[in-house]
Amino acid sequence: MLSNEQKTMEKIVALCKNRGFVYAGSEIYGGLANSWDYGPLGVEFKNNVKRAWMRKFVQESKYNVGLDSAILMNPETWVASGHVGGFSDPLMDCRDCKTRHRADKLVEDFTGESADGWDNEQLQHFIAEHGIACPNCGGKNFTDIRKFNLMFKTFQGITEDSKNEIYLRPETAQGIFVNFANIQRTTRRKVPFGVAQVGKSFRNEITPGNFIFRIREFEQMELEFFCKPGTDLEWFSYWKDYCKNWLLNLGLKEENLRLRDHKPEELSFYSKATTDFEFLFPFGWGELWGIADRTDYDLKQHQEHSGKSLEYFDPETNEKYIPYVIEPSLGADRVVLAFLCDAYDEEQLDEKDTRVVLRLHPALAPIKACVLPLSKKLNDAAEQVRELLAKNFMTDYDDAGSIGKRYRRQDEIGTPFCITYDFESETDHCVTVRDRDTMAQERVAIDKLVEYISERLVF
Amino acid sequence: MLSNEQKTMEKIVALCKNRGFVYAGSEIYGGLANSWDYGPLGVEFKNNVKRAWMRKFVQESKYNVGLDSAILMNPETWVASGHVGGFSDPLMDCRDCKTRHRADKLVEDFTGESADGWDNEQLQHFIAEHGIACPNCGGKNFTDIRKFNLMFKTFQGITEDSKNEIYLRPETAQGIFVNFANIQRTTRRKVPFGVAQVGKSFRNEITPGNFIFRIREFEQMELEFFCKPGTDLEWFSYWKDYCKNWLLNLGLKEENLRLRDHKPEELSFYSKATTDFEFLFPFGWGELWGIADRTDYDLKQHQEHSGKSLEYFDPETNEKYIPYVIEPSLGADRVVLAFLCDAYDEEQLDEKDTRVVLRLHPALAPIKACVLPLSKKLNDAAEQVRELLAKNFMTDYDDAGSIGKRYRRQDEIGTPFCITYDFESETDHCVTVRDRDTMAQERVAIDKLVEYISERLVF
Repeated sequence: MLSNEQKTMEKIVALCKNRGFVYAGSEIYGGLANSWDYGPLGVEFKNNVKRAWMRKFVQESKYNVGLDSAILMNPETWVASGHVGGFSDPLMDCRDCKTRHRADKLVEDFTGESADGWDNEQLQHFIAEHGIACPNCGGKNFTDIRKFNLMFKTFQGITEDSKNEIYLRPETAQGIFVNFANIQRTTRRKVPFGVAQVGKSFRNEITPGNFIFRIREFEQMELEFFCKPGTDLEWFSYWKDYCKNWLLNLGLKEENLRLRDHKPEELSFYSKATTDFEFLFPFGWGELWGIADRTDYDLKQHQEHSGKSLEYFDPETNEKYIPYVIEPSLGADRVVLAFLCDAYDEEQLDEKDTRVVLRLHPALAPIKACVLPLSKKLNDAAEQVRELLAKNFMTDYDDAGSIGKRYRRQDEIGTPFCITYDFESETDHCVTVRDRDTMAQERVAIDKLVEYISERLVF
Repeated sequence: MLSNEQKTMEKIVALCKNRGFVYAGSEIYGGLANSWDYGPLGVEFKNNVKRAWMRKFVQESKYNVGLDSAILMNPETWVASGHVGGFSDPLMDCRDCKTRHRADKLVEDFTGESADGWDNEQLQHFIAEHGIACPNCGGKNFTDIRKFNLMFKTFQGITEDSKNEIYLRPETAQGIFVNFANIQRTTRRKVPFGVAQVGKSFRNEITPGNFIFRIREFEQMELEFFCKPGTDLEWFSYWKDYCKNWLLNLGLKEENLRLRDHKPEELSFYSKATTDFEFLFPFGWGELWGIADRTDYDLKQHQEHSGKSLEYFDPETNEKYIPYVIEPSLGADRVVLAFLCDAYDEEQLDEKDTRVVLRLHPALAPIKACVLPLSKKLNDAAEQVRELLAKNFMTDYDDAGSIGKRYRRQDEIGTPFCITYDFESETDHCVTVRDRDTMAQERVAIDKLVEYISERLVF
């Protein structure tokens, strides 16, 4: 099995493009910088990831409920959350070659360490002191840092004036906070409880990149878990384990995952604890999942700015308090890329023969089964097997080329089960099921097939 | 059973708000005009609708595949599609009271018929000729019509100049057209085949309204079906039936649905045939699903503007052609509202007693089953039943109040099965399953429960 260091983004991007996982966005028009479209396999794969998350974080959890709030929100939300004032990149122009750079990235590239938590003065001072040069022309003639807000702006209504200015949300979390009281009241939940949301967010990043790792239009899967102050560090640890188990249960390899606790000086001023899950992508370690104890910061901000009480009344102790929040925040596109990189393998079968195989967990595989008639004469009967399976899960059908070639096409897209319908099937009402990973074959009765596959989708 | 004319939007909106289906967006900040958030029940319900659509239009269809293209696209897309030039509302100001109106709505309110296909000159002439008055002040002193483009505009990149101007997509369809060649090549599909997409679109409507019927940020479920020219009217009819069956199989009442074929003068210039599915909402008949034969208009436009060939080579006849397109386009929020209105009922049980019940198809119901322990002493054992069910579908748990009250709470949110765990359950390992619609009760073995419920979710 290939290790993640042996894999290359080139191969993974090419597989995605050629097999219909991910295409460059608006490609026929030359694209739109760093936008990507999920193709027929990509949309199934990504939906499976989102469903697997919703399933464990909402359906099976006795604590959490879901939410789907709007992308366009009242702009006061972003004043309260601090995004209008502070959600910006520190940019410097090179006066010599007129290119623009993120000051924190210049520092990080120089030191090889995170510059999270540095302010603009520190960054500027460090760059000057160490004579960090422009990566484009080598000059050392930077402007001062200017702040560039990362929120996409638009206008709602008939006139384009500041009164109608609104933003595309830069995160899904605030949609949860502004609905806290509504949700608590209508679900009659008692603290502790959580609210989970999957949805698009938008950040006008200066330097997006690495395929779908950092994109301007991206999808988040966020949980905001509300608990009693004082119990927060316990819950922080509970959700850290829960998140880790979710990844491992879905087959992510533990050796490609590391948990990095933020040092006190890295923490945001309102956070008591933060842990980053990092994954070993082919381009190096990258942040996958951030888990933070955000204290009561967000609800307090919204209470202050909206004038509405966001206190919780605890019926057991008769206390009133603003709950603390534990936030596990995961990028859907990022974890899709992680599962893809983790699953990608090239297997040497014999001296001349290599196969590419995506060893995705069956629950995540875009296609669960592919029906292969041994001969075109068997098409009608094989089509009935496809129909039977398609009522239960995504099923493909392939009657073109040798069985060997057809197996390889399915291996490459991660289909866990190939179902061959042969002449014997006509009489014994069985088919041959070939396993993607072991390539072992097994004879299974057609009327047991749905059960056979369903059992293997459990995680 | 209540007829749809006897239902009121007030009651439905109140139910949605109080039970957590739909809240006003950004409510603590006074909202954002006509934006709505799906609460814990709403998100499950809407996801079920989207899954039911994907299931029938992709998973079970042997013709179609899925796609999830980006909301932000290269702006040339919207030049080619005609949206930059022509996607606008005809607005008139009342000079007397300074209110702003859509000219086509003024005409439609006056005639009681659709003004689709009228141009600005016709509208303006008709309003003057018939002396249509301002609905606000009664004056007849309108300005000329001005066009107001409905696309939301934003800027990608560091500067806000026209070079960086992009749009939030006003429809998901164009994401499919620009990917036609990529999808055809990578899936190796032969015409006829279709591409289905679920996703958000944005229209800066002047007069949104009627709860989630017409909103600025909405979700579409669109299929673009590519077929050989000459076979298009056959496929038009095929998809019309397919769409109708989808609605009826999910329980929508036929008497609340009507199909309206566009008259030749109403058709867009590129369309050979269009049928609107209309649903009887409490506020009257409203468009639900538009099905159009769009000929080769869209692909031709993109071929011309992009300079890339979008011809299909037919390997059977060795012909090259641009396929014709059948487009069934459905608003997810709208069909959610239709299912909700259709399912809403108030049932007179006896002289003093009425129950509100949402008669949703079990496949669409947000919660499939609610576990009710007869006594708090049975909580531990009942919780085990909840866990068993929650591995398979959305399950609620309620131990507060009398069994009767708990039944009513579930009736109101459409839960098809209430599962009562009683003292006998301890010895006979059975529970009582109570049916939402008939209120009949049945004793079912705990180890048969998942199967019992699963069978009833099929549609």
